[in-house]
Amino acid sequence: MFDLIAFDADDTLWHNETLFQATARDFAALLSGPHPAEWIQERLFATERKNLGHFGYGIKGFTLSMIETAVELTEGRITGAEIRTILGWGHAMLQAPIALLDGVRETIAALAREHRLMLLTKGDLFDQESKLARSGLGEHFASVEIVSEKNTRTYATIMTRHGLTPERFLMVGNSLRSDVLPVLDAGGAAVHIPYATTWAHEQVPEDAMAGRTFATLESIRELPAWLAARGAEAPPG
Amino acid sequence: MFDLIAFDADDTLWHNETLFQATARDFAALLSGPHPAEWIQERLFATERKNLGHFGYGIKGFTLSMIETAVELTEGRITGAEIRTILGWGHAMLQAPIALLDGVRETIAALAREHRLMLLTKGDLFDQESKLARSGLGEHFASVEIVSEKNTRTYATIMTRHGLTPERFLMVGNSLRSDVLPVLDAGGAAVHIPYATTWAHEQVPEDAMAGRTFATLESIRELPAWLAARGAEAPPG
Repeated sequence: MFDLIAFDADDTLWHNETLFQATARDFAALLSGPHPAEWIQERLFATERKNLGHFGYGIKGFTLSMIETAVELTEGRITGAEIRTILGWGHAMLQAPIALLDGVRETIAALAREHRLMLLTKGDLFDQESKLARSGLGEHFASVEIVSEKNTRTYATIMTRHGLTPERFLMVGNSLRSDVLPVLDAGGAAVHIPYATTWAHEQVPEDAMAGRTFATLESIRELPAWLAARGAEAPPG
Repeated sequence: MFDLIAFDADDTLWHNETLFQATARDFAALLSGPHPAEWIQERLFATERKNLGHFGYGIKGFTLSMIETAVELTEGRITGAEIRTILGWGHAMLQAPIALLDGVRETIAALAREHRLMLLTKGDLFDQESKLARSGLGEHFASVEIVSEKNTRTYATIMTRHGLTPERFLMVGNSLRSDVLPVLDAGGAAVHIPYATTWAHEQVPEDAMAGRTFATLESIRELPAWLAARGAEAPPG
């Protein structure tokens, strides 16, 4: 039924947001003193949001936003040692082991035997390629598309480039804003697999989903049965 | 004769290295004192090189490398104000006006009427897309490929993806290492248009070019005549 199944990566195949949140907590602890931790994290998030239009998504931009926030909150009194600590977190995040979500390895391997799979993720090109290589999942994906933003035009462009009919394109991901809404608008199908936490930037108002048709699964493990129920019998790649 | 002509972007279509070099000079001036400027720039370059495998190419990684170098060279005595200055340079670089090289605007516009053109650049996905949008050249390119590294495999993948016969693929760029050598190895043709300065990381030993066949032009203005002399009469895109 689908010619191609595309998967989001961060928080769909492997944990990502938890890494940012853990670092944001460390950051708040480093700067704690007069300010409560939640307020520091809120300031960091505001800096991130302000810089998103210049930095795009990713760890390097996040690290620069931490440093900028630290300079501001300390009114310039941040020490070189503290800056070094923040830089170290950036390096550690870039090299963090890839923690696959439960069921991903076996489900992706099984689906790849029956379907053409694509990895379709936004973010930092270099970092995403590195994560895919470290994930050990690379061989299962017939194609990889790393884009700066996932909007309706992005999906339409990718469908055209790969010669896909929209109704035979399925996107699977954790973000309503990036993986579901724009895919439906582009004429494709979408499966939503919520992650434990959603980055504030990715949240959508509930009424944005009114009248939309898409499936929600609790785990990627449920995807093969969902596809089978849809009578998916696309020939292998 | 060529089905597609691909152009590198940084230092082929618009100035880039000069921006990094100017910022590196400002950086050396900021930290001058006990150390000579050349030595500071050499230390910055060493940090950049060390981080390349984690950061990839681009302004965000360069900014983080400046901060790291500043913390190291001052043995942690860098001030918050100086860090703020360095962060400001990063922001300024990301928003710097795009300065096209001489002859680029009219030559690309003219070539686009006769040939299918591709922009094929490495670096930070978000930043390169932003630069292309700001350059005003976007409409002339039938396709845009932003890759993390330009090696023989990259070129082979792109040729396959676009259904190109290698001998009918022409790459035009300023870097022997990224735009010429790997293209020739992938069976394509290459035109080298040297830029005034070459980033040290892109330099190749002279003997690496022994026995290679490619054209060198002084300016992109010479490209239409070079194509005409090759009898290039590919139909429009």
